[in-house]
Amino acid sequence: MKLAVLGAGAVGSSVAELASQYGHTITALADSQSAVVDADGIDVDSALARKQAEGIVGDAEPEEALSASYDVLVEATPTTLGEAEPGFTHVTEALNRDKHVVLANKGPVAERYGEVREAEQDSEGTVLFEATVGGAMPVLSTIADFDADKITAVRGVLNGTANFILSRMAAEGLGYEHVLAEAQDLGVAETDPSFDVDGTDAALKCVILANVLSEGEECTLEDAVVEGIRDLPSSALDLANEDGKTIRLIGEVSDDGVRVGPRLIEENTALTVTGTRNIVQVETTHAGVLNISGRGAGGPETASAVFADIGRLPNQ
Amino acid sequence: MKLAVLGAGAVGSSVAELASQYGHTITALADSQSAVVDADGIDVDSALARKQAEGIVGDAEPEEALSASYDVLVEATPTTLGEAEPGFTHVTEALNRDKHVVLANKGPVAERYGEVREAEQDSEGTVLFEATVGGAMPVLSTIADFDADKITAVRGVLNGTANFILSRMAAEGLGYEHVLAEAQDLGVAETDPSFDVDGTDAALKCVILANVLSEGEECTLEDAVVEGIRDLPSSALDLANEDGKTIRLIGEVSDDGVRVGPRLIEENTALTVTGTRNIVQVETTHAGVLNISGRGAGGPETASAVFADIGRLPNQ
Repeated sequence: MKLAVLGAGAVGSSVAELASQYGHTITALADSQSAVVDADGIDVDSALARKQAEGIVGDAEPEEALSASYDVLVEATPTTLGEAEPGFTHVTEALNRDKHVVLANKGPVAERYGEVREAEQDSEGTVLFEATVGGAMPVLSTIADFDADKITAVRGVLNGTANFILSRMAAEGLGYEHVLAEAQDLGVAETDPSFDVDGTDAALKCVILANVLSEGEECTLEDAVVEGIRDLPSSALDLANEDGKTIRLIGEVSDDGVRVGPRLIEENTALTVTGTRNIVQVETTHAGVLNISGRGAGGPETASAVFADIGRLPNQ
Repeated sequence: MKLAVLGAGAVGSSVAELASQYGHTITALADSQSAVVDADGIDVDSALARKQAEGIVGDAEPEEALSASYDVLVEATPTTLGEAEPGFTHVTEALNRDKHVVLANKGPVAERYGEVREAEQDSEGTVLFEATVGGAMPVLSTIADFDADKITAVRGVLNGTANFILSRMAAEGLGYEHVLAEAQDLGVAETDPSFDVDGTDAALKCVILANVLSEGEECTLEDAVVEGIRDLPSSALDLANEDGKTIRLIGEVSDDGVRVGPRLIEENTALTVTGTRNIVQVETTHAGVLNISGRGAGGPETASAVFADIGRLPNQ
């Protein structure tokens, strides 16, 4: 398949780098400033080297990537809230051209799910977005396999940064600020960690799950009840520990809606993954509880989910 | 889709019972003695009630199910070794009629994988077999999503009976014979537990995984190095425990081939599931290690995997 990749951050770069291993050709790659376009396949290595050296991937305008020749648009620009732009416009423009869209950007399917599905219905193209929930973990495909209406709840640890901080706080008896600084030094947390520690990132994933599970009743970030981990005192973790428990930032989609917050859970159970690992529990009507754990973020990990989606597209 | 179900044990009965919830119609159901066939849809409840009361599902001959009107043949007869009959013949007869086949029976894809694939190539029908490995867990679909050549190894706890016995032995300090008797009382172990405790069942699953992963080099049970848990003294578990470890029956497919046997593993890691739960670890090139755990056996659980396969069939 011919892929146009929008976004040249960790995920977009990994998709571009690994595409040939999956038998695909990159015909366009864009960052926010520039693009490189070639219907016969761009030179990925030199585009990424130029990005590294000069901060741009090529001499074309970013818009040229969107109008390039491709079968699948891979939307990997940063997630934005509210209008989810420019991701949303990228999605609809590709669909208007009857092209497939594979999203790594959570915005369009978290904030404007109904509109994305409508645009898809009017198009020959299909929209898939496994990469938006849990990186490498096959969460959405598992839900599709089981049929959304045979799933009663989905919950889990959906943010690696928050989980790293909480598991370090619990293991070392350290305070939030101390562990956050450590996580920032290690590159596990961003300079502005709000998106992760306030629960927004986990909530967006839960909202996407809710949209997939409800099939009809649309959900956005505004419908989610979200609490982060900033104000969690280390004494709470000590207390939990005395009782054989610990605290994790758990996101949950159930009949009670979408909720994200610090929860007291038993030690050494499926939900107590440590470090940056993620876990998702899928509660089914006929098959009990399934647990899926793995790397919930990272360039090549998320790219793997993008390629899984591409492999699942119809008409190949 | 119209389904013909061969086998009216736990899995076949569950497929028949749940089919209407997934929008499918059962046009034939057979056990080893009898069948009930109706191109407009059989009365599943009365067929299963008759099975309960009289030991047969209907008045037709079993062969009539195979020649009935259906889109998908669900092969859920008991797994047999060697020639994998009569399962293998069921598969090829359906493929000769250009029908799809969904297997819950491990025999044909463990013992005669190459022949099944050949028959599939000459047919309009597709063969899927998620239900043969790990019940409800989406193992084969995950491998397909990641691309077999991006997977370096698959290992896990693939037999619930053996895992129940080992985890009870470890937790209670009891001997093998004692726990086996307990498992038999609970219905977790068969009267003749050989298939489970000798590692055969886990090995068949690993052989199927090896066939899917190697794509070409065929593997059968004869190629697997298999050791069971019958001779494992409880003192070995005590020794492991003193060192923070435990013992599980682990099946593994890697560059070293297919191996099943009791292995010393760390306590409280992903592989140490307890009771009858199963876990599969998928080691990938680009996305680290994925863990999938859940119910590895059971009627409705395995039926869920059958329906997932049916949902994935082409041309619907």
